[in-house]
Amino acid sequence: MKDIIVNLLKERGVTIEDMADLVLELQKKYYDLTREEAIESLNSVLDKREVQNAVLTGITLDKLAEKNMLEEPLLSILKRDEPLYGIDEILALSITNIYGSIGLTNFGYLDKIKLGIIGILNEHKDERCNTFIDDLVAAIIAAACSRIAHSIKSEKSN
Amino acid sequence: MKDIIVNLLKERGVTIEDMADLVLELQKKYYDLTREEAIESLNSVLDKREVQNAVLTGITLDKLAEKNMLEEPLLSILKRDEPLYGIDEILALSITNIYGSIGLTNFGYLDKIKLGIIGILNEHKDERCNTFIDDLVAAIIAAACSRIAHSIKSEKSN
Amino acid sequence: MKDIIVNLLKERGVTIEDMADLVLELQKKYYDLTREEAIESLNSVLDKREVQNAVLTGITLDKLAEKNMLEEPLLSILKRDEPLYGIDEILALSITNIYGSIGLTNFGYLDKIKLGIIGILNEHKDERCNTFIDDLVAAIIAAACSRIAHSIKSEKSN
Amino acid sequence: MKDIIVNLLKERGVTIEDMADLVLELQKKYYDLTREEAIESLNSVLDKREVQNAVLTGITLDKLAEKNMLEEPLLSILKRDEPLYGIDEILALSITNIYGSIGLTNFGYLDKIKLGIIGILNEHKDERCNTFIDDLVAAIIAAACSRIAHSIKSEKSN
Ligand SMILES: [Ca+2]
Ligand SMILES: [Ca+2]
Ligand SMILES: [Ca+2]
Ligand SMILES: [Ca+2]
Repeated sequence: MKDIIVNLLKERGVTIEDMADLVLELQKKYYDLTREEAIESLNSVLDKREVQNAVLTGITLDKLAEKNMLEEPLLSILKRDEPLYGIDEILALSITNIYGSIGLTNFGYLDKIKLGIIGILNEHKDERCNTFIDDLVAAIIAAACSRIAHSIKSEKSN
Repeated sequence: MKDIIVNLLKERGVTIEDMADLVLELQKKYYDLTREEAIESLNSVLDKREVQNAVLTGITLDKLAEKNMLEEPLLSILKRDEPLYGIDEILALSITNIYGSIGLTNFGYLDKIKLGIIGILNEHKDERCNTFIDDLVAAIIAAACSRIAHSIKSEKSN
Repeated sequence: MKDIIVNLLKERGVTIEDMADLVLELQKKYYDLTREEAIESLNSVLDKREVQNAVLTGITLDKLAEKNMLEEPLLSILKRDEPLYGIDEILALSITNIYGSIGLTNFGYLDKIKLGIIGILNEHKDERCNTFIDDLVAAIIAAACSRIAHSIKSEKSN
Repeated sequence: MKDIIVNLLKERGVTIEDMADLVLELQKKYYDLTREEAIESLNSVLDKREVQNAVLTGITLDKLAEKNMLEEPLLSILKRDEPLYGIDEILALSITNIYGSIGLTNFGYLDKIKLGIIGILNEHKDERCNTFIDDLVAAIIAAACSRIAHSIKSEKSN
């Protein structure tokens, strides 16, 4: 299942390397983190069943909208990335929650300032339906940062 | 949009009357509620944009699964109503949250004991894909009960 | 920190054995679970930082209310276990969320039917302030059940 | 109850005017909003029971920590604003959720970049315990923005 998710993200233009760039960017103020550690944390997040289900569901909806295979009014809502449609944030929240609420801040920040790959997804909104994927990717990155905060803390307390 | 949602629920076998039965059942221990008040509360819940988006998204996925129009592995997960798939509960939670966390208890209870229409949806799982709708309906009922609790309280404090 | 939490629960009348009884009760329909496995799962839940923080915060508020050490109107709200106060459910949700949304149903069910230790906490509401602890304990039990569902699933897929 | 909440916020250094500044700042890119409209939206948010309960609970904990009236280890966790303690974000989330998930992004952004009054609260962390209030205020502002987005949308569709 994990390989399916990693391939689905890649098919939509997002690699683990792209996400590692943002994990490093967000953490550089706090910890001296290597790229390997960032990738390891992203892999642990992507191993979680709840994360896989959210990604699978959200990207499926993005792809169906792109192929006009959804009925109205959902089709237009997703194609326009309608601001009052919040199910994309709801699925994202189910990802950040797994490592506790400390991921919320990073998720909201990434979603707002559209750094790196999240900005790229946002720019390609005209050709593609990226309604879910930007939030899912921001949530995966935020969860990987939370996981790092938790693990550094528990090392220190030993 | 509200009419679309009410029709979509009806198409999948759920009427406002069915939901009113369960609102009355859950509230009978606490308040002397008329059927009209139960229906009015359900209508207010169904007027909310966030509720409409959750219902629209969940029922769309149920229908696509039923028509085998989703790719694997999501198709099998939804058709089997896989117990570790929690996106149906996630969407339901976005409904109960609108009237605060007090709806959680009623939602969980309905989802577990499968009273009334929720039991009926569950029995028809073999012919239909009812993975999302049972949770959505339980959440709408729980939200209508929360709304009643809030409004009775504020009348009293006047 | 974990010992502090276990002692705090015990001080308020809840042992790991009490919680194991309910894990076994909830799971008996699905799996052939031993008491040791139930206790192991509860211990894993109690090892989580987010769970510890929720328990610490909620029980602190219960104890302060019991000693009349809170200002009004919060004091009366907690002492009466005011039905529209939902912060107890909010903290409980932060516990169930750690193992995904599948714990919601068991949480709501326990909170409603007040099985075992949860019923006992509820009966002693007159002498003590048990506003938070009943929801926290229901959430810990529900999370332990979710963790079991996840681990049985992953064993099977190996 | 609403007056109590407004006074409690003021006592901790936060006025409705301070919050209106940030509502205007966040919305200026999207809508031509007057200060009166921003204040009206904040007042509607503060009228909600769930918001009042979250503010009451969080600020009570901040004040008790400041007066050293909590037991350890919660006292030190709150006084240090321990990064792995996420109950402040959990309470904040219960506020943003009332207007749906679209408030999450603004909440996370405010919490991260610490604009205006949120930055001021953060600077005074040494003398005061502001562990909860910064997240609560960010959530109230984010909720007021979501409410504006919903109401502008529904005007348009008439
Ligand atoms: Ca989006
Ligand atoms: Ca379901
Ligand atoms: Ca309670
Ligand atoms: Ca804080």
